[in-house]
Amino acid sequence: MGRTLVYPKVQKNTIHRKDFRATYDLSTIHSIINDTPVLHVSFNSLDPKDPFPTILPMIGIMGSFAFPSADLNEPLDCYLHGYVSSGIMKQVRENPESGLAITIAATRVDGIVLSLTPNSHSYNYRSAVLFGYGSLVDDMQEKLWAMEMITNSVVPGRWDQTRTPPDKAEMASTTILKVKIVNGSGKIRTGGPGDEKKDTEREDLLRRVFTGVVPMWETVGEPVAGGAGRVEQVPEHLRAFRDDTNKVNEKYAKTAAVEKI
Amino acid sequence: MGRTLVYPKVQKNTIHRKDFRATYDLSTIHSIINDTPVLHVSFNSLDPKDPFPTILPMIGIMGSFAFPSADLNEPLDCYLHGYVSSGIMKQVRENPESGLAITIAATRVDGIVLSLTPNSHSYNYRSAVLFGYGSLVDDMQEKLWAMEMITNSVVPGRWDQTRTPPDKAEMASTTILKVKIVNGSGKIRTGGPGDEKKDTEREDLLRRVFTGVVPMWETVGEPVAGGAGRVEQVPEHLRAFRDDTNKVNEKYAKTAAVEKI
Repeated sequence: MGRTLVYPKVQKNTIHRKDFRATYDLSTIHSIINDTPVLHVSFNSLDPKDPFPTILPMIGIMGSFAFPSADLNEPLDCYLHGYVSSGIMKQVRENPESGLAITIAATRVDGIVLSLTPNSHSYNYRSAVLFGYGSLVDDMQEKLWAMEMITNSVVPGRWDQTRTPPDKAEMASTTILKVKIVNGSGKIRTGGPGDEKKDTEREDLLRRVFTGVVPMWETVGEPVAGGAGRVEQVPEHLRAFRDDTNKVNEKYAKTAAVEKI
Repeated sequence: MGRTLVYPKVQKNTIHRKDFRATYDLSTIHSIINDTPVLHVSFNSLDPKDPFPTILPMIGIMGSFAFPSADLNEPLDCYLHGYVSSGIMKQVRENPESGLAITIAATRVDGIVLSLTPNSHSYNYRSAVLFGYGSLVDDMQEKLWAMEMITNSVVPGRWDQTRTPPDKAEMASTTILKVKIVNGSGKIRTGGPGDEKKDTEREDLLRRVFTGVVPMWETVGEPVAGGAGRVEQVPEHLRAFRDDTNKVNEKYAKTAAVEKI
């Protein structure tokens, strides 16, 4: 119902190979980013003699501070949390107007696709890439809002179960990067294996080679009490998170193994 | 026993924050790369006006064609398989001497670390980054060797269970990137949560907040027959792969939840 926003197809983000698997749909791409526990964030060195992009693992979530109730189909910023070295801080600070050019990648593997010949093997997967300009969140209200959103993206409801709000020192030592997204794309593979005629016509192969999909998914185990706290019983917000995540992950991988989603 | 090779610590790869979690050990870093189903591969655009690094999800494995029996502690190349667009091919071909500067990242999440306050929350994880120069593998013997190694890295023994070797057209249409590694680093977090004294001294928090670790691991499900093949029983190489992977993944995550590994 209603409009479906898409990222503009330009040279940078257009997927040419197997383009029937490509998506430019904001909602789909933002979902993949949000559902991936750790994102890979890449940007260039300030040093023109350093040819290697840096890649950092960071936790990230899509959101809009101006319109907090915006849904995944809306234009959103990506808020990133993770250690930001003095080198990166310097790069971000040196680009106060435009921000630092950042590429964000998320990939989830949903299964191994086994066909008659190695060349047709594949993964079922969901991947997304976003391009945008990053700046540090200095506004304390926005920073606090982002910290709560990021914490709750890891375990829903966790923020309110802990000692909050962060004190002044914690607010100062935490860095949140806000990436204004300019473009993005996604790619999704689901379903069983495909083989070429030259192989599917060979009776010997059909009788010898197991073809199909091995579903794979991330499992959340039983929480193990430890550390300073003395609560031994697993609280409801953790129990629900575990049950929901396992149900969703397993169901998606098993469905993707047998049908196009 | 014997020597332990490490990547040289230079500005690019030195981990400053929580450096007790850093590793430069070849064996550890190569293991993380090999055990991660999909790697993120990043490099710069040929177009100097494009500020965004490209990131591609690819399958990769460490190996040495010159010394195929080399173990993970030896200097190894990273062989990457995945769709290589005409644009990348062009970039690689235009750097025949040095190769294309490539950064490779792998991250596995092993658990969610729950502490008294959001700021001390964390993941248990294993991450690795490699820097190197990529070129296309043109030698047919090396290409075939790499294809077999990559296939068997996804499911051990799979190559011999399928229709091999690839025919001429398949060899021509498959691209293998070989990345000569010049440097790398890894970072690993294991164990339970840590909290600051200001929180661990508060009885109200200790009684209210559940602290500990939620272990997480990748689960391999029951293979689902599908596609052209007519074998219905799951073959031994798949059964063993599934059992071994699940055992190793679950055990690591659960151990990491309670002790430093």
